[in-house]
Amino acid sequence: MRHSLFAGGKRLRPILCLAAAEALGARSGELLAAACGLELIHTYSLVHDDLPAMDDAPLRRGAPTSHVVFGEAVAILAGDALLTLGLSVLARHPEGGRHAAARLEVLVSVTQAIGSEGMIGGQVSDLEAERNSLKSPDLLSSIHEAKTGRLIRASATAGGRYAFASEDVLAKLDAYGRALGLAFQIKDDLLDVESDAETLGKRSGSDSAARKLTFPAVWGIDRSRQMLAEKTEEAITRAGSLPGAGRRLVELARFVEQRRA
Amino acid sequence: MRHSLFAGGKRLRPILCLAAAEALGARSGELLAAACGLELIHTYSLVHDDLPAMDDAPLRRGAPTSHVVFGEAVAILAGDALLTLGLSVLARHPEGGRHAAARLEVLVSVTQAIGSEGMIGGQVSDLEAERNSLKSPDLLSSIHEAKTGRLIRASATAGGRYAFASEDVLAKLDAYGRALGLAFQIKDDLLDVESDAETLGKRSGSDSAARKLTFPAVWGIDRSRQMLAEKTEEAITRAGSLPGAGRRLVELARFVEQRRA
Repeated sequence: MRHSLFAGGKRLRPILCLAAAEALGARSGELLAAACGLELIHTYSLVHDDLPAMDDAPLRRGAPTSHVVFGEAVAILAGDALLTLGLSVLARHPEGGRHAAARLEVLVSVTQAIGSEGMIGGQVSDLEAERNSLKSPDLLSSIHEAKTGRLIRASATAGGRYAFASEDVLAKLDAYGRALGLAFQIKDDLLDVESDAETLGKRSGSDSAARKLTFPAVWGIDRSRQMLAEKTEEAITRAGSLPGAGRRLVELARFVEQRRA
Repeated sequence: MRHSLFAGGKRLRPILCLAAAEALGARSGELLAAACGLELIHTYSLVHDDLPAMDDAPLRRGAPTSHVVFGEAVAILAGDALLTLGLSVLARHPEGGRHAAARLEVLVSVTQAIGSEGMIGGQVSDLEAERNSLKSPDLLSSIHEAKTGRLIRASATAGGRYAFASEDVLAKLDAYGRALGLAFQIKDDLLDVESDAETLGKRSGSDSAARKLTFPAVWGIDRSRQMLAEKTEEAITRAGSLPGAGRRLVELARFVEQRRA
């Protein structure tokens, strides 16, 4: 669990959660533990995605993957335990009766985002698409939306719920998270084509080697870059409609567009 | 998910949860969904325990295991999704503000019972014991306690929490669950030695074939039978100390002792 969690990573989901809460005036210090719960859950998904039966990836976040170091059985169990701990953290944090309703709401939102109709469903579709070399824009969108988009959106609204946001503001955070998540995925796919393993911390070109369904594979590199710019602008516009003009969320969208790894 | 969940099974954990709540005067109808959440979580643990990287079991609940039917990748994901759905169900049920505090308490209790210091930790120790042919009474007790005991105890106290039990009554339910869980495991190990695959729904003798750490292997069959009777009596005594003399819980302990599969 430690090996995979502390190998690095951009911490997009917890940062997004904290930035959303800060944009609404909450103090992020007391939300830190809950935000870590989101990263635990994300890390579980990486450990299981990298397993021999799935992507069979040797490298992640610049380190050998869990199953390479500890064997397949322990890697499966480490992923299971990261998921369990992540949800346990969300059941316990942020502490206090004041946040009890938000804890339950976030648990419902996150478990639906990562379940069989969200992240896990997306991973099943991804495996099927890979095995059948399917490449359609609709399938690409639906897989991305389920596999990574849903948890990113749930991370944004979690921050809103911890800040006691109204349903209207939660809907705006959800729309921001949708645009940001799409920008993030397009950038991820572009980096896989354009970067090298040392910068990336995982094998570059591994998506195309696995004939994975990616934005460059479906739309080409130029159109993908254009889509990245469009989604970044959309995220920034959405952030601007939030109380306080969501300054941190604008910065986060710029980071996602410009990151090098 | 359906394949493994509806292959049968004794439904010990949900029945225990409902029986505990009924013993305290709660109506079990409104608790049924939450009780099912416990069975979803238990089923996840079976699917992952049976994987090729773990016990590599071909048969469970009288049906081919998930990975045999759907392949290893889908079996891992089905297990992940069963765990996620189970916890999602516990975050949503029993419905209503009246049960909100109990929902959070049960989530904390269950995630700790099945995490790296509970069920998953027990599975890691079990794999290590098997690989190193370790057989000591202390190790047997600690593995059983972590791997199956904790979730059984959490199922008993969940029923109590749904019935708004005091801390004192929860402690009694926990002690009952501990004795019942131990009786259940001893019976399970005895059945593996004494029964046949058709009755059992899984390969009999598979524990000893895998040189697993079991009660008969450590204590012998006669002493194991004696321990089963002792633990059953202890569970019955604990149930008797509950409000209403825990009639359903007494029946459940008798069932666990006498079951044939």
